[in-house]
Amino acid sequence: MSASTRLSPGDSAAYAALLDKYDTWMFDCDGVLWHGDRLIDGAPEVLELLRAHKKSIIFVTNNATKSRPNYKKKFDGLGIEAHVDEIFGSAYAAAIYISSVLKLPKDKKVYVIGMGGLEEELKSEGISYVGGTDPADNTLASPTPIADDPTVGAVLVGLDTSVNYTKLSKAFRHLYYDPSVAFLATNTDSTYPSANGLLPGAGSILAPLVYSLGPSRPVTALGKPSVRMLEAIKAKHDFDPARTIMIGDRLNTDIEFGKAGGLATLLVLTGIASEADLTGPNPSPTVPDYVTPSIGDLRAIGKPAA
Amino acid sequence: MSASTRLSPGDSAAYAALLDKYDTWMFDCDGVLWHGDRLIDGAPEVLELLRAHKKSIIFVTNNATKSRPNYKKKFDGLGIEAHVDEIFGSAYAAAIYISSVLKLPKDKKVYVIGMGGLEEELKSEGISYVGGTDPADNTLASPTPIADDPTVGAVLVGLDTSVNYTKLSKAFRHLYYDPSVAFLATNTDSTYPSANGLLPGAGSILAPLVYSLGPSRPVTALGKPSVRMLEAIKAKHDFDPARTIMIGDRLNTDIEFGKAGGLATLLVLTGIASEADLTGPNPSPTVPDYVTPSIGDLRAIGKPAA
Repeated sequence: MSASTRLSPGDSAAYAALLDKYDTWMFDCDGVLWHGDRLIDGAPEVLELLRAHKKSIIFVTNNATKSRPNYKKKFDGLGIEAHVDEIFGSAYAAAIYISSVLKLPKDKKVYVIGMGGLEEELKSEGISYVGGTDPADNTLASPTPIADDPTVGAVLVGLDTSVNYTKLSKAFRHLYYDPSVAFLATNTDSTYPSANGLLPGAGSILAPLVYSLGPSRPVTALGKPSVRMLEAIKAKHDFDPARTIMIGDRLNTDIEFGKAGGLATLLVLTGIASEADLTGPNPSPTVPDYVTPSIGDLRAIGKPAA
Repeated sequence: MSASTRLSPGDSAAYAALLDKYDTWMFDCDGVLWHGDRLIDGAPEVLELLRAHKKSIIFVTNNATKSRPNYKKKFDGLGIEAHVDEIFGSAYAAAIYISSVLKLPKDKKVYVIGMGGLEEELKSEGISYVGGTDPADNTLASPTPIADDPTVGAVLVGLDTSVNYTKLSKAFRHLYYDPSVAFLATNTDSTYPSANGLLPGAGSILAPLVYSLGPSRPVTALGKPSVRMLEAIKAKHDFDPARTIMIGDRLNTDIEFGKAGGLATLLVLTGIASEADLTGPNPSPTVPDYVTPSIGDLRAIGKPAA
């Protein structure tokens, strides 16, 4: 396993070399471009510079709480140029998987643990669902006799800050008592970086089901690092993997995603991964091609020659 | 590993031999004596017969949603004779551990994910706590800036049918950001048998924390199969392990608990474990000394000679 190339902020030649090598730049968002509602210094300028150099930009996020149009509003609010067709979320990847790969019959529904954005992506693919934001399932009351719903053909779990025992119990029963029900997740991130520090992520919302169902009922996760996510992007964009770079803050999602797809990878240290994950006593087995402290360092690429 | 002795319902001599060998009879409850509010056929008669034969009876439950006095009310409601000092729950074992082993300083609190019974057991040991049934933490609203509480010295997780993202986030932050905070659980049962089938258990409520914190932050579980539970019983009761039998429906809690404590073990098949766990293609590594289809089979011991 070869070591990462370390990019030193200020070494303009190193960043310019990167610019020459890659035409398509895929960005993770949380922890790379922003923390919650706080921009990471220099992120908007770097995106503007890449656009000025005629680079393709794609945003690849495991955040499944927002649909693509709603995610665009987040960019708008932070003053970053972005277009809906540049945005790929794990909610979208899950919806594409259900309609195109799983081919869920039209008379079957998805039981959702997740938020409005996930429902919107399902709706846009014409997929019926129950659970999710339905007030009947958003309660802290104990679930007394659960009426099982035989029309459910899949359970899909994403980050849900309204998760509760009723939703977990319903999802568990669908999967435990009916082996034909598909078990899907948007992503398995253990945490996510909020503006106020780490909070439990989609993988932690999923964990009660993984634990209660046991290893005989494995989950299919559609977000990074799954290649399903890259397939969802390929269906909409032409790009050459050899001239594409994936930029992220998380080794086991972003960097593994890039590597699995044959892309170059650049790790930033403004989110989950730290220097210790690279050079500490228990280094990660996933080694990015490049490391730079922050996305803002890429301002060194400068403007294109006039 | 030797095979289990199979007891055949009706073979009175086999059950009488059991009666001769063991003076103290420890019972799991859910799945052994009842399913939710439904008695298992013959359970009350068997307990009466054992009492008539002057056997000691101890109830050992991982159910941490009820305190011992409240658990006694459950026996009363089902018409089963039981005494508070015969009842040992994982909530009680956790409270004893916090006060006697952890020796949590008096100015420190326990952050609770759990229900009223767990709080009552902490109260009875003079332990301060936050979270639990506090209405402020029983909400489906998103936890926006969580005010961390430096007086928390331990997080204790049990089955909580009001579990929500606020509680999980608070517990996560206490454990993630302060390495001195102890990480405790009443038990790690993946499911529990309700009157209407399986539902996620305490281990599934705990799973988001185990997953988000990762292997560097292991949890100490106090209920079965932990020997801590047997120590809590030993502090109150005299019994000879060689003449004690543990009866349960779950291999990885009840039967492992008995084996770890040097007790004989009897598995019943009215709860979690099934014949396939014993003789199927992937048999459990935990082999009980005895197996009988149901606790009711022990009616064959008959009444003592007058």
